[in-house]
Amino acid sequence: MTTTADPSTTAPGATRTNRSAVLRGERDLVVEDRPVPEPGPREVLVEVGAVGICGSDVHYYEHGRIGPFVVEAPMVIGHEAAGTVVAVGEGVDPARVGQLVALEPGVPCRHCEQCLAGRYNLCPDVVFFATPPVDGAIARLVTLDADFAFPAPEGIDAEQAAMAEPVSVGVWACRKAGVSAGDRVLVTGAGPIGLLAGQVARAFGARHVTVTDVSDFRLGVAAELGLDAQRADQPLTSEYDVLLECSGAPVAVRTGLAALARAGRAVLVGMGPDEVPINVPLVQSRELTVTGTFRYARTYPLALELIASGAVDVNRLITHRFGLEETEAALTAGRREPEAIKSMVLPQG
Amino acid sequence: MTTTADPSTTAPGATRTNRSAVLRGERDLVVEDRPVPEPGPREVLVEVGAVGICGSDVHYYEHGRIGPFVVEAPMVIGHEAAGTVVAVGEGVDPARVGQLVALEPGVPCRHCEQCLAGRYNLCPDVVFFATPPVDGAIARLVTLDADFAFPAPEGIDAEQAAMAEPVSVGVWACRKAGVSAGDRVLVTGAGPIGLLAGQVARAFGARHVTVTDVSDFRLGVAAELGLDAQRADQPLTSEYDVLLECSGAPVAVRTGLAALARAGRAVLVGMGPDEVPINVPLVQSRELTVTGTFRYARTYPLALELIASGAVDVNRLITHRFGLEETEAALTAGRREPEAIKSMVLPQG
Amino acid sequence: MTTTADPSTTAPGATRTNRSAVLRGERDLVVEDRPVPEPGPREVLVEVGAVGICGSDVHYYEHGRIGPFVVEAPMVIGHEAAGTVVAVGEGVDPARVGQLVALEPGVPCRHCEQCLAGRYNLCPDVVFFATPPVDGAIARLVTLDADFAFPAPEGIDAEQAAMAEPVSVGVWACRKAGVSAGDRVLVTGAGPIGLLAGQVARAFGARHVTVTDVSDFRLGVAAELGLDAQRADQPLTSEYDVLLECSGAPVAVRTGLAALARAGRAVLVGMGPDEVPINVPLVQSRELTVTGTFRYARTYPLALELIASGAVDVNRLITHRFGLEETEAALTAGRREPEAIKSMVLPQG
Amino acid sequence: MTTTADPSTTAPGATRTNRSAVLRGERDLVVEDRPVPEPGPREVLVEVGAVGICGSDVHYYEHGRIGPFVVEAPMVIGHEAAGTVVAVGEGVDPARVGQLVALEPGVPCRHCEQCLAGRYNLCPDVVFFATPPVDGAIARLVTLDADFAFPAPEGIDAEQAAMAEPVSVGVWACRKAGVSAGDRVLVTGAGPIGLLAGQVARAFGARHVTVTDVSDFRLGVAAELGLDAQRADQPLTSEYDVLLECSGAPVAVRTGLAALARAGRAVLVGMGPDEVPINVPLVQSRELTVTGTFRYARTYPLALELIASGAVDVNRLITHRFGLEETEAALTAGRREPEAIKSMVLPQG
Repeated sequence: MTTTADPSTTAPGATRTNRSAVLRGERDLVVEDRPVPEPGPREVLVEVGAVGICGSDVHYYEHGRIGPFVVEAPMVIGHEAAGTVVAVGEGVDPARVGQLVALEPGVPCRHCEQCLAGRYNLCPDVVFFATPPVDGAIARLVTLDADFAFPAPEGIDAEQAAMAEPVSVGVWACRKAGVSAGDRVLVTGAGPIGLLAGQVARAFGARHVTVTDVSDFRLGVAAELGLDAQRADQPLTSEYDVLLECSGAPVAVRTGLAALARAGRAVLVGMGPDEVPINVPLVQSRELTVTGTFRYARTYPLALELIASGAVDVNRLITHRFGLEETEAALTAGRREPEAIKSMVLPQG
Repeated sequence: MTTTADPSTTAPGATRTNRSAVLRGERDLVVEDRPVPEPGPREVLVEVGAVGICGSDVHYYEHGRIGPFVVEAPMVIGHEAAGTVVAVGEGVDPARVGQLVALEPGVPCRHCEQCLAGRYNLCPDVVFFATPPVDGAIARLVTLDADFAFPAPEGIDAEQAAMAEPVSVGVWACRKAGVSAGDRVLVTGAGPIGLLAGQVARAFGARHVTVTDVSDFRLGVAAELGLDAQRADQPLTSEYDVLLECSGAPVAVRTGLAALARAGRAVLVGMGPDEVPINVPLVQSRELTVTGTFRYARTYPLALELIASGAVDVNRLITHRFGLEETEAALTAGRREPEAIKSMVLPQG
Repeated sequence: MTTTADPSTTAPGATRTNRSAVLRGERDLVVEDRPVPEPGPREVLVEVGAVGICGSDVHYYEHGRIGPFVVEAPMVIGHEAAGTVVAVGEGVDPARVGQLVALEPGVPCRHCEQCLAGRYNLCPDVVFFATPPVDGAIARLVTLDADFAFPAPEGIDAEQAAMAEPVSVGVWACRKAGVSAGDRVLVTGAGPIGLLAGQVARAFGARHVTVTDVSDFRLGVAAELGLDAQRADQPLTSEYDVLLECSGAPVAVRTGLAALARAGRAVLVGMGPDEVPINVPLVQSRELTVTGTFRYARTYPLALELIASGAVDVNRLITHRFGLEETEAALTAGRREPEAIKSMVLPQG
Repeated sequence: MTTTADPSTTAPGATRTNRSAVLRGERDLVVEDRPVPEPGPREVLVEVGAVGICGSDVHYYEHGRIGPFVVEAPMVIGHEAAGTVVAVGEGVDPARVGQLVALEPGVPCRHCEQCLAGRYNLCPDVVFFATPPVDGAIARLVTLDADFAFPAPEGIDAEQAAMAEPVSVGVWACRKAGVSAGDRVLVTGAGPIGLLAGQVARAFGARHVTVTDVSDFRLGVAAELGLDAQRADQPLTSEYDVLLECSGAPVAVRTGLAALARAGRAVLVGMGPDEVPINVPLVQSRELTVTGTFRYARTYPLALELIASGAVDVNRLITHRFGLEETEAALTAGRREPEAIKSMVLPQG
């Protein structure tokens, strides 16, 4: 059983095919028609309003793989998505049709030890948008488990709702670090994740948030967002309770750990080389805690709340917008334009 | 005001001078007479019964330094000590005279942020036995803050009480790791610390404790102690919730982290090179938590309890005993004798 | 699709009907034939070997209700069950047929906020054996979600495996209390839960476990189990870090809280009156933490492990055994026989 | 050795005697000359700028006691104090002379188990301003351990700095409750503590803070401070993650606990009757955590920071000001004037 929206919202032609951005391999992306998906039980069908481009999307485009995940068959790309519910499957409240929703991209198995323990982000059987072989969200329409389609608060639009994904990365990092009122927080890396994590840390009550980077442009954006921006090649003059490492650069790991006070907590968010040298005597003598994050769990409601309240400004980060047919340009914008921070694909545009 | 013990316990000659094992520099140790110390306010004077030799003592003896800590002036060596209270300073209950006490070797400042937060092991102004320039405990007599002289439970002797120091290292590692009932624990390194930490983990309720090492002799001791002993060069066949890294070897860090289950916790106890390569993607994808320990805090009562109850067998580890005049032999025993685990100096012997 | 066991294990007559102990209302229990259940997808069909009688079963029998849960339609009673898998539904490994399993009696929805957070015991939509209107487990055959049928370790039998349920209550209480090595634990009430919780606390490393009760018989059993037994009407002479309140008696709550040291933790497990007076100034001046438990989550593997290793002795508690046709006698044994601790119904007997 | 300020700041007459507000018993307060105190080692001498009147001061004034604490000898009243360092004792940096400091009123022993564990607020030997027989702070001059005289951030004055004491109560309550970003917080009681705790919760990232009271005037102040104010006799329409009970009223405890979501956390801050009925089945079925606070520990730097940044508005709460000679009027202002929230005594005025 599927409850469909008023036909007027889904014009005849629109529902016949599902135009989608498909990655076929390294630097081989096509936009093509695919069958319109049907929402299964407990699923919603969503007309995708906006999809942010993430570094991992670019990596799949440029290399056809990320570590062990290889694009072996054509795969729809994109996972930072939001849109409007246009139909619901069995067991989903039909009143959800019309709702603007942010799409949490990973649906866990709900049966394994990790799921039962509330660590569903570590579920080995998670089905995650645009992680081979699972199709992603740069398409006109997409289905998703209804539990993972989170209603957007009033006053935010699809682009902002799509930003709940990278904001979630920041929320999860702050939770892992236990950021609390009064903490002095160092964020290394002023890319989209660092700029968001820094704002999230402030919303967690951090007294002082410093963001470092090598790009003066990005530091300028950090400063506009009210964060304390500092060049990564300048010495840090104070000590911190928390490090949110968002660059992936080994030098930032080293510098960041060295800047932590006794009993400091570090969360490694950025992705870099497989092995990073760590100063173990430092970790021991200060009893630092170092952990890493893998996606996030139970972050979407808060991420949406922070966006809606303005505690986290996502608008300043959305620098470029593309139509569905221009997805390849969206994927290459970061390389071409130094002032690109976050590119959005608007599949209905 | 000093309350002294019955003179019969401190014979005339014995109290005139305080025979002490003094390290003057690299491989330069003498046993010499020093003045008898007086217990100050809130202090006890202790007739030292036994002092264990630790790897750090050996390191100071062999290299004259550990990292930034350099033996620049003659220093009494030794910090794993226990003995009998023979006099007390002002403000200490005179009834403590005669008490067998384990000596926690570090006395913190009680005023800094770390002390007020209960993390006194991280106090930057701690005064710690045999850490230059502070004198240690291989001497006939030593004074210590009475708060840090812990009464030994009935039925244990000075040697066992002295072992409360390395047992404390294990207790602290288990607390940092949050070892709890049912945990599967991997201990890398079957030296004194590993053998004790493994037993402590079991006393914390660990379901299964595996100890790895490259020495068959040490693995044999681990097996005698009821731990699951396994050669470090053999692959691990199960996964673990907790890693207690007690070898300091980078390869053990790598192997140990790789053996952790999702959400596993690693505590780096062993001291090794300054930089150790860490597989950051592994830390991230499994959301491992890695921390290090620096000494211990509030562990002595439990350590003594575990020794007294037999939950931790320290006797099997005490393989060699030396008189005060033989301290140098005690420091070199580990190099000479492959089957040495823990050497004890008995200053009254 | 259902994979069935070798027919020899389920004799023709046996599978035709499913003999079950059905509570029809207050003191109205019949044993009758019901249809043989079919395992649905992800379910197992279990030939029930043993079902322990719990205080809540007795309460339903005597009063026809527990608070808001009213027996409005006939309901199979019993929820502390174990047995042998005789068939599996779709999606379950057929190799599980023949496995002895302990049955965790509550299957949560897996979709709500509580489930996703790992607190599935708080799921408002949990389906729990013998909680109206859900049928329980005193029957020849029962189906259950396969995830909640936990393989029993080697060497334990169905009766012991059934005890994983009350042992789980103890495990959960110890986890909630954060019982760790060295803790001094007070257990008020030496009924089955108290006797198990005390043993579990010891397996969590508690240094000292005192159990109080007004029954000398039960205190004798506590002493046999190696716990420190003390009459509840005698003053406590030491202080405790943890209170596990297992009696439900307001006086035990009062006495137990008063026995806690500063920063002590209390877990209220026992069920008693709706309102219990709490000494709030005491809770404040010692900064006590008070919480309550509702069933348990993720405890079965550890509970089974503790039973199998002998860390928790369940045999001493099983004082009476009944056939399926004698279920009513099993429900009334506690009232009739002062030395009854745990009664078992053996449905195949 | 005492380093004194420039004599001009302590005029001849002023230093001869130390005018102080002394409570001699129930409703028996005099302002009299006492000897000028000398700062001992590690102490500062402070010219008191402002002292807030707390409910406990009023209680001592009206009843001559609080529970076991009886005013048996004349005692200087007041403990919410701030002022300017005018001299320092041995071991204190003379550069502190001239510094505006907030005075944390309790100095712990630094030696007991609680102190070493970082829970110095639970130290049984704490010396606390205006807790019999310890003199308080409504005086021209007062000495205090220098560690507990916290420099005020730039831009705040003595009155604001004195408010660090009740703000600390709110900080400690939020820490005990683990208030974090996104939490829905209910504060029962809109007295000074409730109004501050609610603001502190917001600074900890609470998404939504509701304050209840029976006084429309106080609710109006709550609303002015940006909190969601609601009459205590109206039903609550949503559920909360955290309860900060700041009224001491049993009905607020009942209503507040009932408003908590599953796994909610309650902190009992308000002081009321000795026994409060608690709905234990509710605590159990929702697995609520209930704790209480006793003063605070390590809160002053954050409290001062929150005041200085404006995150917590203390000015709106300071409704009345009195000179030292009018201390009795300050103690009775709350009874006389319904719109009094916080009265300040300005001892130099």
